Amino acid sequence: MPYELYYWPEIQGRGEFVRIALEEVGAPYVDVARKPAKGGGVPAMMTLLDGKRVKHPPFAPPFLRSGQLLIGQTANILLFLGMRHGLAPRSDAGRLWAHQLQLTIADLLVEVHDTHHPISARLYYEDQRREAKRRAADFLQYRMPKFLHYFERMLADSGGRHLLGRKLTYVDLSLFQVVEGLRYAFPHAMARLEKKVPRVIALHDAVAKRPRLAAYLASERRIAFNEQGIFRHYPELEGK
Amino acid sequence: MPYELYYWPEIQGRGEFVRIALEEVGAPYVDVARKPAKGGGVPAMMTLLDGKRVKHPPFAPPFLRSGQLLIGQTANILLFLGMRHGLAPRSDAGRLWAHQLQLTIADLLVEVHDTHHPISARLYYEDQRREAKRRAADFLQYRMPKFLHYFERMLADSGGRHLLGRKLTYVDLSLFQVVEGLRYAFPHAMARLEKKVPRVIALHDAVAKRPRLAAYLASERRIAFNEQGIFRHYPELEGK
Repeated sequence: MPYELYYWPEIQGRGEFVRIALEEVGAPYVDVARKPAKGGGVPAMMTLLDGKRVKHPPFAPPFLRSGQLLIGQTANILLFLGMRHGLAPRSDAGRLWAHQLQLTIADLLVEVHDTHHPISARLYYEDQRREAKRRAADFLQYRMPKFLHYFERMLADSGGRHLLGRKLTYVDLSLFQVVEGLRYAFPHAMARLEKKVPRVIALHDAVAKRPRLAAYLASERRIAFNEQGIFRHYPELEGK
Repeated sequence: MPYELYYWPEIQGRGEFVRIALEEVGAPYVDVARKPAKGGGVPAMMTLLDGKRVKHPPFAPPFLRSGQLLIGQTANILLFLGMRHGLAPRSDAGRLWAHQLQLTIADLLVEVHDTHHPISARLYYEDQRREAKRRAADFLQYRMPKFLHYFERMLADSGGRHLLGRKLTYVDLSLFQVVEGLRYAFPHAMARLEKKVPRVIALHDAVAKRPRLAAYLASERRIAFNEQGIFRHYPELEGK
């Protein structure tokens, strides 16, 4: 039975980190909320969030159904997929380290989101633009470099081209997506920063060339970045 | 060998979620940055964050040393301690569910922090007070109720007094601490909300009475809440 992924149908968002992992391992999955037919669409997702018939309703998308299991929280889904599909080390110590890095990426994603929504996710960007400019300036000057330099250092120390050494893990896939997103959202800041984190960029480039990922990225399954997702391009947030 | 916990010495913060778990299981641990002696204090913590001799340096505190392992990210530390000390279910499915709830609490903590620091963790609260008022109003009106109602529902459906049923897990301990913190930070809003989430409050009260926790809470090891941590009491953020 294929996995069922539940996520907002018109954005990459956090769901993309799950999609990329599923695509890399070639696991069959249904992107439920993107199916227009009966039993699909956003209503199918909302039923599981709000419904009373689910044993473990998640707090928010994305979530993944695997047989009887319904798993929420992006990093938790990747923890699960990593064990199942060889996208994580086999040792407990290695799995904890991979997960720790993934949770650090999750922290970064919150900060990226809050560059355009520092006050409330319920309000439009336009209603918090002044605050967004302040927050984005801090993010670009301090936080984005701190995160990317950290991952650069982890790559330098890993003993391989990947974050955990020679073998690809789900964390590498997520870091690829982070670079994709930051390039879209903050092209000028990234152009400057990329020179200082060559290992991060080399990893990004290597992931992009993996056959299944390359096929996915060229397909219609890959939603384009847009101003509804986590990574949004508002030139004024870069001071442009 | 005792565990070594590394966290800022003057706040509860995220470290408190780890301390409470260690205290509940009676695990010996050294709160390294709170030790004034040689080899302790904040410098001992910074060495591991910045140092080159650590194999897996964490991005930020808290982190826990267990023998050769150095584990970062609060939820990841609890995942580890939960397996080791019977504070989590034994099945993979149960562990994933506990961890999913913990990550939802982690999300809540970020939002609590950002009520007083919506622009930058580097700036003083006083330098982002206006933005904080806006963000806190949204948090108190929408987000705090949403999170607590979610946990109330999970308790109603769990088949026991605890979030995972009849047995205590680390998530229950964390939810106790969330209630403690929200009561400190937002006493008026919580006084209103508590009536609507009786199961959350009952769980809080039961956890507070557990012998080891009660002894811990009455000891000097429990740092008082203050205006340096995640949960801060600024009456103006409640509109008072």
